[in-house]
Amino acid sequence: MKNIQIYDTTLRDGTQREGLSLTANDKLRVAQLLDDLGVAYIEGGWPGSNPKDVEFFQRAKSLTLKNARIAAFGSTMRVGGKPEDDANVMALLDAATPVCTVVGKTWTLHVEQVLRTTQPENLRLIRETLAYLKARGREVIYDAEHFFDGLRANSEYALATLGAALEGGADSITLCDTNGGTLPWQIQEAIKQVRARFSDAVIGIHTHNDGELAVANSLAAVQCGAVQVQGTINGYGERCGNANLIAIIGDLEIKMGYSCLPEGNLEKLTTIARSVSEIANIAPDDFAAYVGRNAFAHKGGIHVAAQRRNPMAYQHVDPEWVGNATHVVVSELSGRGNLLSKADELNLKIDERDPRIVHVLQQIKDKEAAGYHFEGADASVELLLLRADPYYTPPFELIDYMTVVEHRQGRGMVAEASVKLRVNGEIVHTAAEGNGPVNAMDIATRKALAQHYPAIENFNLVDYKVRILDGHAATGATTRVLIETANHQRRWSTVGASTNIIDASWLALQDAIEYGVMVAQKD
Amino acid sequence: MKNIQIYDTTLRDGTQREGLSLTANDKLRVAQLLDDLGVAYIEGGWPGSNPKDVEFFQRAKSLTLKNARIAAFGSTMRVGGKPEDDANVMALLDAATPVCTVVGKTWTLHVEQVLRTTQPENLRLIRETLAYLKARGREVIYDAEHFFDGLRANSEYALATLGAALEGGADSITLCDTNGGTLPWQIQEAIKQVRARFSDAVIGIHTHNDGELAVANSLAAVQCGAVQVQGTINGYGERCGNANLIAIIGDLEIKMGYSCLPEGNLEKLTTIARSVSEIANIAPDDFAAYVGRNAFAHKGGIHVAAQRRNPMAYQHVDPEWVGNATHVVVSELSGRGNLLSKADELNLKIDERDPRIVHVLQQIKDKEAAGYHFEGADASVELLLLRADPYYTPPFELIDYMTVVEHRQGRGMVAEASVKLRVNGEIVHTAAEGNGPVNAMDIATRKALAQHYPAIENFNLVDYKVRILDGHAATGATTRVLIETANHQRRWSTVGASTNIIDASWLALQDAIEYGVMVAQKD
Repeated sequence: MKNIQIYDTTLRDGTQREGLSLTANDKLRVAQLLDDLGVAYIEGGWPGSNPKDVEFFQRAKSLTLKNARIAAFGSTMRVGGKPEDDANVMALLDAATPVCTVVGKTWTLHVEQVLRTTQPENLRLIRETLAYLKARGREVIYDAEHFFDGLRANSEYALATLGAALEGGADSITLCDTNGGTLPWQIQEAIKQVRARFSDAVIGIHTHNDGELAVANSLAAVQCGAVQVQGTINGYGERCGNANLIAIIGDLEIKMGYSCLPEGNLEKLTTIARSVSEIANIAPDDFAAYVGRNAFAHKGGIHVAAQRRNPMAYQHVDPEWVGNATHVVVSELSGRGNLLSKADELNLKIDERDPRIVHVLQQIKDKEAAGYHFEGADASVELLLLRADPYYTPPFELIDYMTVVEHRQGRGMVAEASVKLRVNGEIVHTAAEGNGPVNAMDIATRKALAQHYPAIENFNLVDYKVRILDGHAATGATTRVLIETANHQRRWSTVGASTNIIDASWLALQDAIEYGVMVAQKD
Repeated sequence: MKNIQIYDTTLRDGTQREGLSLTANDKLRVAQLLDDLGVAYIEGGWPGSNPKDVEFFQRAKSLTLKNARIAAFGSTMRVGGKPEDDANVMALLDAATPVCTVVGKTWTLHVEQVLRTTQPENLRLIRETLAYLKARGREVIYDAEHFFDGLRANSEYALATLGAALEGGADSITLCDTNGGTLPWQIQEAIKQVRARFSDAVIGIHTHNDGELAVANSLAAVQCGAVQVQGTINGYGERCGNANLIAIIGDLEIKMGYSCLPEGNLEKLTTIARSVSEIANIAPDDFAAYVGRNAFAHKGGIHVAAQRRNPMAYQHVDPEWVGNATHVVVSELSGRGNLLSKADELNLKIDERDPRIVHVLQQIKDKEAAGYHFEGADASVELLLLRADPYYTPPFELIDYMTVVEHRQGRGMVAEASVKLRVNGEIVHTAAEGNGPVNAMDIATRKALAQHYPAIENFNLVDYKVRILDGHAATGATTRVLIETANHQRRWSTVGASTNIIDASWLALQDAIEYGVMVAQKD
């Protein structure tokens, strides 16, 4: 089985998508997920152009990767310069990654109007930038920008730029359809030309979706001998997006017989696609190929009946291969297994036939219908299991809370919360101010509990995410809040949902604190 | 120039999309838009299976169509029956459309396991159903369900079903990739086989997007001689959707030199795509090929500068050809050029040397450092430009607000807001309850302004998004709120940011309402 190298650029080209921005921390989490999926390369950013990316590369050094190599991205050096004097090239070296990816100009239009230099000078920039990095031990990938437009405009020159890259020592050359307007057979014709000229070159493909053809263009390239595919998770990217690696991996592995991921990893596809969308705070596309919530949904009763007789009658692939499920069975079947292993993890001895399992599954189902989402909130699931135990006593119970936010002309903003709790039979009633109403609630609750549970000083909320569901209902829509909390040993995630953002936040906060107190008692 | 017939099935197959439902009235509006765009066929529904569709066909008789012919869809008659006794066939005739489209079985698996009949009987069903409709003066289109899977399983039988359709008098035969899993070159191989057997047949293609290849598969079919393309506006459809006619029309007309629409109609593409999404009550896909709001967006300052020198340097086609526009994204990284292009886009006449430009750029920089993000918030940018004008008087000013959220044991949640504003020199002080604190503020503010600005009744918040920045600071982090508002003619987006989520929401809300009131005064 032939291997295809998957080169992920979600963290660089993906973040060009309007509205998508990732912190260095988000980027590290995505990198870990990509490595877990098993891509060959993770392009982490453009250290020479984006100061935030420098932090990522600094922190990425401590990542332990099983499958992927980290790549830093940059352009060829400045016109008339030398690599050793070029800030961008130095930033690439400073990133200290095993791989450097260098983009250069192919299209004479860009050489003349954007770089404003001569054709031979551009060849020198490509050759010398690559040679410099190569001499410093880097694996060097050359991205030929606007390759297909350049080839159409001046094929001899376009091929000469690839020649310069190979002379400079490029380990592989990636043909980029930067403007995203090329058709599949044009991609194929072009690759044939490249292979005829450079028969030994390792060829990659990088496409954009402006003609809704990015996936097809990538597959067409592989058919003609490309062995590296660049793209992004869920197709995030500038304008209409980059090539969607999720669909490409599904098509290549299942339909074309290539190997892209380590054995057995294809079934992680759905989880990874959804987790990346969570981190990017972009609602997952329910209609996405392979991994969408509706990708294997069946509406008609006839379909479902035929489906039972023969699962392949109305499905192009088995959803389990990519970790997805036929829509109907999601909550019933995949839930039970997850829940039992969760109980194991908690050291709760629950039999497969324990009525608590059915009870908690029903709760999960009801709560998900009301806007909860437990995939990213393990601690809330554990609490559901614990609370189903008749001998479980929660460390505290809510009686009342109130939050007030005031804006007064000339005096600015005040946010205040009061909280009344029952703790070990005692009523505690406190209040606090905060940056905002949720922060004030957090502080007040901690104040109320500190005497009874000193361990509360050891953990803190470290992440807070808000997702508006059915944004169409605007400020009346359901709000889902995800909170991440950490002490010195571990992190845990909790969820709350409500049409009232304060209430949703309280529910997630209450779980976060209850779980933290409970864990401290056991540790 | 060769013609391709565009066959739209948004009203039938498109409504299989989860969550999409259209009233008969909606369907009539969509049909009018499709005819205005200039498609050749409009499939209105399945009268034999959906009673609502009967009403559509009844009322469609009074439509005046310039370009399109209406088609009614149905399946071959029941096993063992006669057309004249078959309720489904009668419903097709009763629809009284010039065109009938009949779907039949190709795949032996479905003949045996779903129809539960013999292979020869299925051929009879196809032949006789078509002949009956043909004899009654209809143009008859035959849809070969699961054609590509059927051909793989038993090519002789699959071709025999097409033979039966042609014997029955089919005017054209459409090859359907019903499960959506076929690859472009498999489509081409199959069409070559069909054309070798039936050289005179008029061939159509109908694809689904399960491998994210529906557009490419349609184009591949046209390349091999298919002359009719079935699909839906925006690719709406079951599971991952049908082939997206919007992208297909763009690709065929602009890149492949075919004619699909009457001369001059291509520029209606963007309006039609967005109008259909409005009628379907589905948020338009901002990243859609050709017609998405971001399809021609440019973010980087270098891109924008190069763009001004040569518009084709970073665009695959001219956005005006499809009725779209270049969308300049204003952000921290962008310079004077972006803001000027933005002012152009907004029809604000501002000179390049106007000091307001420098002032507003500085404001954008400061506010983005504080957590704002103006990329998705054109109306807030426009307000910054307007407020920089010394003669601008805002329609209202905030004095105070207060929000209270209470949870009381046994009494549940209450959210209430009070707002004090200065409106045309008068002080207005009102209060309201809501689903949550922001909803309560929205209602209270509208109440305060309704008497002075009755136009406020004509617009509504349609989307509300919350992003926590630097989630690390958890509930003390900066919160960014994006609000989308719409009246009958337009949509606008505004942004607010603060460490207090209520304050961030207020800032976005205030801009949303101020902009709406201001636009109403100008319109």
